[in-house]
Amino acid sequence: MRAIVITRPGDADVLQLRDVPRPEPVADLVRIRVHATALNRADLLQRRGGYPAPFGVPADIPGLEFAGEIDAVGPLVVTLRPGQRVFGIVGGGAYAEYLITTERMAVTIPDNLDWLQAAAVPEVFMTAHDALRQAHFVAGERVLVHAVGSGVGTAAVQLVRALGGTSYGTARSPEKLTGARDLGLDVGLAAATWSDELAASNQQVDVILDFVGSSYLGANLNALAPRGRLVLIGLLGGATAEVDLSVIQRKRLQIIGTVLRSRPLEEKIVVTQAFAKQVVPLLARGAVRPVLHRVFDLQAAAAAQQYMEQNANFGKIVLRVTA
Amino acid sequence: MRAIVITRPGDADVLQLRDVPRPEPVADLVRIRVHATALNRADLLQRRGGYPAPFGVPADIPGLEFAGEIDAVGPLVVTLRPGQRVFGIVGGGAYAEYLITTERMAVTIPDNLDWLQAAAVPEVFMTAHDALRQAHFVAGERVLVHAVGSGVGTAAVQLVRALGGTSYGTARSPEKLTGARDLGLDVGLAAATWSDELAASNQQVDVILDFVGSSYLGANLNALAPRGRLVLIGLLGGATAEVDLSVIQRKRLQIIGTVLRSRPLEEKIVVTQAFAKQVVPLLARGAVRPVLHRVFDLQAAAAAQQYMEQNANFGKIVLRVTA
Repeated sequence: MRAIVITRPGDADVLQLRDVPRPEPVADLVRIRVHATALNRADLLQRRGGYPAPFGVPADIPGLEFAGEIDAVGPLVVTLRPGQRVFGIVGGGAYAEYLITTERMAVTIPDNLDWLQAAAVPEVFMTAHDALRQAHFVAGERVLVHAVGSGVGTAAVQLVRALGGTSYGTARSPEKLTGARDLGLDVGLAAATWSDELAASNQQVDVILDFVGSSYLGANLNALAPRGRLVLIGLLGGATAEVDLSVIQRKRLQIIGTVLRSRPLEEKIVVTQAFAKQVVPLLARGAVRPVLHRVFDLQAAAAAQQYMEQNANFGKIVLRVTA
Repeated sequence: MRAIVITRPGDADVLQLRDVPRPEPVADLVRIRVHATALNRADLLQRRGGYPAPFGVPADIPGLEFAGEIDAVGPLVVTLRPGQRVFGIVGGGAYAEYLITTERMAVTIPDNLDWLQAAAVPEVFMTAHDALRQAHFVAGERVLVHAVGSGVGTAAVQLVRALGGTSYGTARSPEKLTGARDLGLDVGLAAATWSDELAASNQQVDVILDFVGSSYLGANLNALAPRGRLVLIGLLGGATAEVDLSVIQRKRLQIIGTVLRSRPLEEKIVVTQAFAKQVVPLLARGAVRPVLHRVFDLQAAAAAQQYMEQNANFGKIVLRVTA
């Protein structure tokens, strides 16, 4: 089969389309004919050698999510059959024509999504949904989403709306805030002044989904209402910060660190099945939808990654694997 | 009735025994004839003017817990009757011969505890139990308890043992570690070297109950196993610290701030009823027991508080209200 291979650590030009052996679906594994995959920031780290693939997935083929159809099933597979349309997350190997995964990690794609739309869904919606679950978000709460134009941000804003919450979002550009408002963002805040804007409005939030880290920490803790929860999903603004623990104690706050890829199988299955139960029905009826920014062909993966490095995208960058 | 009154903010000598009006049990309130109460560090803060009583409790009578008998009940009280032996926490007012509280905040005392023993239970066991619940502690987990000779520390060590966990504890003095071992502490660590000792043993813990704060923060995060939880109960070592958020994210840790007294009534009732259901049976069968360090008479409350300020106690300092 054809796959994009990281030939050595480096810039985007180390990615090359190569012929590699097609994996075999033994035991409870299914083989998926990949029709589309999508880019994640972790792909760039992995290409540079800073984020090695976990055991059990191809070490040199990037790709953390897929949309495709079941091609063959192992003898222990119970529910899936060849031809079924499925999407999901994997620890790597999705920039390829075929991949294998565990039956419980492949979710039926709703009929209203084509391959490209479906490929824009798994990572961002599972990450956002899982973060809201870890924060024990419930209807009626206020959720502040930083970097609201990011893939996870656009998914989070839609989920908060669909699940009965009020969303606050920050972004560097007015265009991204406008785009987020089209997705249901209630209150848009400029990244440079969000903390002051929020304080001036005398409002606090119950949950914060943060990808920024240190430079926002103090402001995040101040922005939280009593019993608020800060979920650390990324640390793009740095990792080391000074913290006032008395704020955490007095307001009874929680800080929750999260990362998806390093989790053991059983936890990834829990995330996947919670997504299947709670998010897929929202996708099926159009209450939330994939935000597809741009499509590249698989062989143009290097150009797609270079494009991602410009940070200009609003929503997902998708790779078309089949015509 | 007689009560200890904070006559003005200041040192222990501002506490005076006075005659004050006896409170009346209207609506769903019960009046309790207090037989014993106990000291808490918050009492010292309140006496100095730094920790005002919440609305609805006597502003100038300290005392956060009681053991006594129902003396009279309001017309809406359903289950409690005069003569029943009860203990519990209150927002203030327990250094007195009588107090009023809500029916659901008074828990039946097990027969094997006398008044003085019962008065040593509520604050420390509810605080420790609630902290373990907030941390979602389950059997099989390792729990590090700082200041293991404190009232909450001695309660936490016993609860961890009784609920199927392994306890690690720190204290400044070898005597306190020995005392904690008699209560079931599995691994005693010196306060000055605990972090190195733990690292040298290649062990990590799942839960930390911390009363120290800033000076322990980095070491606490390092000591936690993946998915570990740090519960901030006190900040005796300071509130401001530098934090490495990447440790929190990578290990998927949680930091949980908690404080009991400022919570709304419904949350205090939840804490009380969880204690009644899960801790009282352990007390009744001797699986956990109050740690009563020293008893003073109510009129000697000033001397009792001065004694507490020496930080020499292991377990609770109790005030005998009736003979």
